[in-house]
Formats: sequence, C-alpha cells, structure tokens
Amino acid sequence: MDCFRVSILGCGSAKPTLRHSPSAQVVDFRGNLFLVDCGEGVQVGLQRCHIPVGKIGHILLSHLHGDHCLGLVGLISTLGLGQRTGEIVIHAQPDAERIFRPLFDYFCPELSMEVRFEPFDPTQNAVIYEDKALRISTIPLHHRVPCCGFLFEELPRPRHLLIDRCEELQIPFAYYQGIKLGNDWTDPESGKVVPNELLTSDPTPSRKYAYCSDTICAESVIPIIQGADLLYHEATYLHSDVVKARQRGHSTSLQAAQIAQKANVRQLVIGHFSAQFITEELERPLLDEAQSVFPNTMLANEKLVINI
Amino acid sequence: MDCFRVSILGCGSAKPTLRHSPSAQVVDFRGNLFLVDCGEGVQVGLQRCHIPVGKIGHILLSHLHGDHCLGLVGLISTLGLGQRTGEIVIHAQPDAERIFRPLFDYFCPELSMEVRFEPFDPTQNAVIYEDKALRISTIPLHHRVPCCGFLFEELPRPRHLLIDRCEELQIPFAYYQGIKLGNDWTDPESGKVVPNELLTSDPTPSRKYAYCSDTICAESVIPIIQGADLLYHEATYLHSDVVKARQRGHSTSLQAAQIAQKANVRQLVIGHFSAQFITEELERPLLDEAQSVFPNTMLANEKLVINI
Repeated sequence: MDCFRVSILGCGSAKPTLRHSPSAQVVDFRGNLFLVDCGEGVQVGLQRCHIPVGKIGHILLSHLHGDHCLGLVGLISTLGLGQRTGEIVIHAQPDAERIFRPLFDYFCPELSMEVRFEPFDPTQNAVIYEDKALRISTIPLHHRVPCCGFLFEELPRPRHLLIDRCEELQIPFAYYQGIKLGNDWTDPESGKVVPNELLTSDPTPSRKYAYCSDTICAESVIPIIQGADLLYHEATYLHSDVVKARQRGHSTSLQAAQIAQKANVRQLVIGHFSAQFITEELERPLLDEAQSVFPNTMLANEKLVINI
Repeated sequence: MDCFRVSILGCGSAKPTLRHSPSAQVVDFRGNLFLVDCGEGVQVGLQRCHIPVGKIGHILLSHLHGDHCLGLVGLISTLGLGQRTGEIVIHAQPDAERIFRPLFDYFCPELSMEVRFEPFDPTQNAVIYEDKALRISTIPLHHRVPCCGFLFEELPRPRHLLIDRCEELQIPFAYYQGIKLGNDWTDPESGKVVPNELLTSDPTPSRKYAYCSDTICAESVIPIIQGADLLYHEATYLHSDVVKARQRGHSTSLQAAQIAQKANVRQLVIGHFSAQFITEELERPLLDEAQSVFPNTMLANEKLVINI
C-alpha cells in the first residue's frame, strides 16, 4: 500500500531529558513530508530517523509553547545552508509569523528558499491543506494557550475494477479509469447501462491519522477523530496526577485511552511524557494504565516509526 | 587546588549532527558556573555532564549566530519552570537583548528570576566580569559577524607563608593575612623591617583559560591569551580547506595549533568541527594535523571535562 507513515522525533514535554526530546514528528504521505511540531533537537531527530531535512515541504505547529517550536529557527537555518530552493510553508496560528519572521531575518539572512506562513484559527475544525490524495484539518484542543491537533485524511481511493467482468462486456481500456472513479458503463450499441457496482468492488479504505497534543481530556475531539487508524494522544501524567494534569492543560494516560476507545480508533500511541519519567521502568505504568482501557496502545519513543 | 574546570557540552558547528551538538560549554570556577555559548541542545548537554541547570549564574555569548545561542530561550524557560530565583546575567553584544527579550516575554511570561543583559563591545579587549578571585575579559575575534572569545583569569593568589620563619620572629597570628598579601613585617620593639620576601614564597601560579570560537586565524589574539593553561580554539576544517575556512570566517586545525604554539599555552583543545566529520575516524586527521605543530592537543567531545 502507498506509504503513510509517522516517525516520532520527540515525545517529551517542556523540559528536554536524556530520554526524550521535545515534540516533533514527521508524517510521510507518499513521499511528501510534513513536520508536525518542531521542538528543540528536531534536526538531530531527523538524522536519527534518516529523514532528509531538505525534503520537508510543510511544517505544522500545534501551538506556540517553546517545546513545540523552538527548533524552528535552527531548522530553517540549516535548510537555507543546504541550498534548498522553492518554498517551505509553515502552518501555524497568526502569532507565529510575528515571532519567527524577525528571527529568520536575523539568523538566516541568506535563505535560498521562500518561507511562507499560512495562518489558521486553532479554535476551528477546518481544512488547512488539501491535494489530490490528502487532506489535513485542524482539531481544536484545550490547553493553556490556543492550540490544535491535526487530522491527516487520505482522500477516497479509486474503486477496484472487476477486470473479468469488464473484459466479458468488452469495455474498452480507455474507460477503465472513469469506472474506477465511479462511472457506470453504457454499451454504445445496445444503449444498455451497466451500473458501477457490477463493475467494481469497494476501494481500499482511506486511512486517517490524528495528532492530539497538548490538551486536557476533551471529548469534543471524538467526532473529529472518529475511526482513525492511528491516534497520537498526549499522556503527560499518570492518572494519579489528574488534578495537576487539568491545571497544566494536559491529559493523563487513562484519559488518552478513554478518548481512543470512545473514538473507536484502531491504534493509540501515547507521548508528551513529563520529565519525571526518566527510565523505561518509570514509563511502563503509563502504558499499563492506558492498556487497561485500550489494549492496542503503545508508548512513543524517538526511534518509533509507525506505518498506517 | 580550587576547582577551575571546563565541561564541553557541544563542539560542533552550524549544523547539529548525531556526533556533535552546537557550541556550548560550562566553566566552573570554585562552584560559580559560567555558561559559554548556548547552542541548541544545551539542556541535554548539561544533563549529560550532570551539571545542575539552576546553578548557572552567567551566560556569555561569543556572537549571535544560531549555533551559539539558539538554546537560550529553552534554557531560560526551563530555569523559570524550576523556580530559580535571583538573577541570571547574559553577557552579549548589544543586539542580544533586542532579539531575545521579546522571546523571553512570549515563551517564558512567568519567569521566577530576573534576566539581565550586560552588553559588551566585541571589538575591544575589556573586562566584562570581575569578583575577588576571577576576571573575565573579551578577546576580539574575526568572523563573519561581530564576535569575541573570552579569557578567564584567576586573580593573583596569596603568597605562601614561611611559617617557621614567622614563628621564629614571634610574629603575632593576626598579621599573617597581611603578610600573605605582600606586607613586610616591622618588629614593634626594635623597629626593624623584615621584607616580605623573607617571610613568604611565591604563590601558586594563577590559572588562565581562553575560549576562541569562531574566528579566522588571527595573530592579534596571541598577546591576550599568552601563557594560558588551556586554550579552546576552533578548528572547523582541515588545512586542505584553508581557503574555504577563511571565506567562512573559520580556522583550520593547523592554524589553531600555530596559535597555541605562538601563544605558548600549556594545552590546546580543538572544537567547532564541521558537520563533515561524522565519525571518530574522520575526525582523527584534525588531531594529527594539530599535534604535528602542537603535541599537547586534544579533540573536544560532548563528555569532555578538563580540570585546569
């Protein structure tokens, strides 16, 4: 199946640790690379995952806390050094250009490519990118500052041709593409219409990836992420810290699992771990807690690549 | 002897690699911590070297290229989270406050401590910090943008008391401190003056550390760093790339060694390695080249701690 893959570059929270880098991940959709959040250390993360920095075309920032965007100036600087040409698009809330443009001007005065900001409203569920095969939309979240997640949706794929049936009806090859897209077939001699469902079977289901970080446990995301193949949801704390989590605008591992369950997603990966989880042993209870509600859960880590 | 120690946190150049982080190091002088440059990843470097981030009192920035200062906002943010109080002083050229103050205001709005900028002129050799035991001064360098190194000089230590001589002369204990600082002794009964050199021997020599990154090979630094116990000098390239080095405002390994030799320093550590040196094997010729001129040279690395 066509590539649709998430590589985790960083899944820690505000304070970087020896175990986890701040938030950053790359969504590779058929060779188009989207960087989602851009915490400090993102360049090392890209190298660790063997992802060529020059191929990133779009950067999406969930919100403007430092642990989600302070790797941006260094990254743009390196892209400029590397003789990248064309355009790189930064999708972020309107403040971003005011904050970052002066830094690009100061630290990267001789960029070889254009940097364009594409502002969005993080309080709305709206499409921010669409091409022939992929749509990306915002998922309003609830954090201490304006914040949203992102839903990556593969657009409906062509139907599968029932090739024996088509040959039997002597349909010319030139009509196959239209039939895959849903057209019926009208025999030019008899004028008889053969409906599409007799010529095709259902397409491979389209895939969805939802990224939700940082947020309190918010049921409002459920209808948006319903049925996603993969959900990355923040799980900054264990549920024993649920009060602290809410105060700081974060979720617990249990809450992430409850969202996954209610949204009927296929797989959950949790991340944005608090700096207190400095060993594998300390992190394990986060997984146990989530799996008690939603068994198909895994812990994020900085070498994890998930094919969707 | 009292602690005077340099910990290398990052010794790469503009582009971070899996091998080296951008420039940052900590000078620990008798428990006072000075962070010299502050590239991205500095917080992880501090943890790797077990240096408590909250104990850093002063940050010195050699120049405002991203690889020397883009870790600053994240670091200040973490310091603010950690309930550090008091003041942190950033010594940098005047542009720094204009660039970084708005970022602190945006990304760290609730800092628990004061951040004070102490501007200096990087084109002058001038004292920028002095306490009872340590003086720090700027070393004008020659790079693509205004840039300086830093000289850390231990102030003259007290002379050693010749205790047998003092007891023989029945000098009261209360006068010892003054004699250590260089006073003569006048016998109150006879009025006879005993000169200080008969009562003391020379003090332990004061120590000096010189940091020179980034710069073309500049002989103008030699009188300033003369006789330093340790010199950190950039060696971005091998001498086969001497033309490129000069164009980019950098030095070769051979040039770093020539500076060390002419300045008669005791030990040289080279760093700021180009991203092309991605393995120990590739880096080795940098060392060989320097040692051919100045044998007491070592390569910097991100776990290196040098006691001066």
